[in-house]
Amino acid sequence: MSVRQLVNDPDDLVSEALQGLEQAHPELVRHHRDPDFLTRTKPADKVALVSGGGSGHEPLHTGFVGVGMLDAAVPGAVFASPTAYQVRAAIRAADRGRGVLLIIKNYTGDVLNFGIAAELAADEGIEVRTVLVDDDLATESDSGPGRRGTAAVVAVEKICGAAAERGASLDELAALAERVTGSARTLALALAACTHPGQRRPSFELADDEVEFGVGIHGERGTGRRPFAPVRELVAGLTAPIVGALGLAAGDSVIAIVNGLGSTHALELSAAHRELRAHLDARGIAVARSLVGSYVTALDMRGCSVTLLRADDELVDLWDAPVRTPSLTW
Amino acid sequence: MSVRQLVNDPDDLVSEALQGLEQAHPELVRHHRDPDFLTRTKPADKVALVSGGGSGHEPLHTGFVGVGMLDAAVPGAVFASPTAYQVRAAIRAADRGRGVLLIIKNYTGDVLNFGIAAELAADEGIEVRTVLVDDDLATESDSGPGRRGTAAVVAVEKICGAAAERGASLDELAALAERVTGSARTLALALAACTHPGQRRPSFELADDEVEFGVGIHGERGTGRRPFAPVRELVAGLTAPIVGALGLAAGDSVIAIVNGLGSTHALELSAAHRELRAHLDARGIAVARSLVGSYVTALDMRGCSVTLLRADDELVDLWDAPVRTPSLTW
Repeated sequence: MSVRQLVNDPDDLVSEALQGLEQAHPELVRHHRDPDFLTRTKPADKVALVSGGGSGHEPLHTGFVGVGMLDAAVPGAVFASPTAYQVRAAIRAADRGRGVLLIIKNYTGDVLNFGIAAELAADEGIEVRTVLVDDDLATESDSGPGRRGTAAVVAVEKICGAAAERGASLDELAALAERVTGSARTLALALAACTHPGQRRPSFELADDEVEFGVGIHGERGTGRRPFAPVRELVAGLTAPIVGALGLAAGDSVIAIVNGLGSTHALELSAAHRELRAHLDARGIAVARSLVGSYVTALDMRGCSVTLLRADDELVDLWDAPVRTPSLTW
Repeated sequence: MSVRQLVNDPDDLVSEALQGLEQAHPELVRHHRDPDFLTRTKPADKVALVSGGGSGHEPLHTGFVGVGMLDAAVPGAVFASPTAYQVRAAIRAADRGRGVLLIIKNYTGDVLNFGIAAELAADEGIEVRTVLVDDDLATESDSGPGRRGTAAVVAVEKICGAAAERGASLDELAALAERVTGSARTLALALAACTHPGQRRPSFELADDEVEFGVGIHGERGTGRRPFAPVRELVAGLTAPIVGALGLAAGDSVIAIVNGLGSTHALELSAAHRELRAHLDARGIAVARSLVGSYVTALDMRGCSVTLLRADDELVDLWDAPVRTPSLTW
C-alpha cells in the first residue's frame, strides 16, 4: 500500500498549513511570513512563552498558541529545526518587555538554533530564559545528548502558560518549567511507522507480529521489538517503566497524557486510557487529570505514547486554568 | 503493510472506549451500561438532544455529549446501528419532561432502530421528534434510500444544541434541525480505505495513482476514481459540486467543515482548508466560520470531506454559542 497526502508541493506544506490554520482561527493566531511563525492575535502584557521545533508533530506547537498557553510558535520544515533567525523573529514579536521563556524539546538542532536565537535576542536587550524538555524515558542514558523531548512539552506549555497569564515572573516560570519537566516521563510504541510528505515509503518496516517500543516522534526506530499484544499488555509495557522512573507509589497522584502518534483512532486512545487507569488504580496511584487525544504526532505514525506527570495541588490548579487555543480549549 | 489496532477483544472495544472516555471527562459525560450509552453528567432543564449510530466515527457522537450540544449519545458496534432498546434507554435517561429531539443520520439501520425507539418512547408518554440528516451529495439520487448522513450532523448537533440551551421548544428545534440539514451538503474523498478493528485488510484497495471520490464513512466505495493530484485540485473537486448543489453565489456566506476521515494529519487538513478558502474566495463566497479537524471519521480512512452550510446571522450566532464537550469546546 502506498502512502499519499493532501499536499501541493511538499516544500510548501508547512507554510500553507500555517495560512490555513490562521484562516480557521483568526481570533486566536496570526501567521507571520519571511520568516514563518505564529503569534497570538491579541498579545497580553505578561512574560511571553515561545516554543517550536520541526513540523509534523501538529497540533504541537502551532495549535497551542493562544490565551493561557503559547505566545508564539516557530515551526521548521517537517522534522527539521527552525533557523535561529526564525526563532529570533518570534522572540522579538512575542516580547512585551517582560521577558521570554523559550521552551525547547531536547534535539540537537533545536538546542543549537534556539540557543543562538536566545543569545541574539539577549544582545538586543530582551531577557530570555530557556528550559529543555527531556521526558522520553526510552533515551535515558548516562552519556550522549540525553533524553529526547516529547509529549510532556504539552504539560510544560499548558502549566507555564497558565502561570504566565496569572502574572508569574520569568524566573518563576523558568523554575516551574524545570519542575514540570523533571517530574514527567514518557514512553511510546508504534504499530506502524510514519511517512514523510511527498514520499511513499515508511521510515521503518514492522512485521505483522511486531510492535516497536520506545519510538521517538521523528520516525526513529525504538529501543526494541516486542510481540503484538492486546492493548492491556501494550499500555502496561509503557506505563510500568514510567512508574518506576518517577518512583510513583500508592497514594501518589499524576496528570496523565495518552497521546496518539498520528493515525491512531479515538476509539483506540479511549481504550488505551482505560488500560492506563486500570494499571494505575491497581497500584493505588490516583489520576488527577487526563488528556487523551493526538497532541504530539509523528506525521501518520500508528501508535501511542503515555506521559505521567507527578501532580500536586499547584500543578493541577494551573492545569485546570482556562485555555483557548486552536487545539486545546477549556 | 498489515493494519493492527490498540484493542483487546474487538467485540469489547466500543464499551471499553466508552469507559475510557468517561474516565477522561467525568465532569462532562456519564457512561451507562446494559445497554451502553452516554449522557451528560449534569442534566439541564431543557429539550434533550439525542443522537447516535454505528461506532468507528469518533469523536462523533460520543465526543459531542455535554453542555451546548448532545444530552445523550447511543453507539452501536463498529459501523452497525445501535438497537432500538439501546436508543429507548438513552431517550428515557435524557428526557427532562420537555421532549427529545432524535438526530438520525440517514442509514437504513439507524432509521429503523431510532424510529422504533421513538415510537416506544412515545408510547410511554415521552414527546419525541426526529430529524434525518442527509447531506452526502455523492448519494444524491431520485430513487433509493436518499443521501447518506455524514459530517453535517456536527453542525446540526452544535446549532440545535445551542438553541436548546437557550430554551427553544421541541417544535422550534425540529424546524431548526431541518433547516440546517437542508442547507448543508458534504463530499468526501479517500486516499486509502479503512480497516475494521481485528481485521488486517482494508475495505477496498486503491492503486498508487488513484483517489476515490464520493466515499462514505463506512468503508463504502465511492462514486468514481480520479487521478491522484495536488490538494488544490482535490479540494476543488469536492467543493465545486457542493457550491453548485447549494446554489451558492458571490455575496453568499457559509459555515465550512474540513473533516479528516481518520488518518489524515493536521498539517494536511490545514492545507486543505487553505485550498477551500482560496476556491471560495475566488467565487466571492464568504466563510463566516470554519471547523477543521477529524470530527466524523471512518476508522483509519485516509482522506477528507468538505461540508458547506449556507449561513445567516442566526446560524452563526448559534454556532458561536459556548459549547463544552470532550471533543468540541469553545
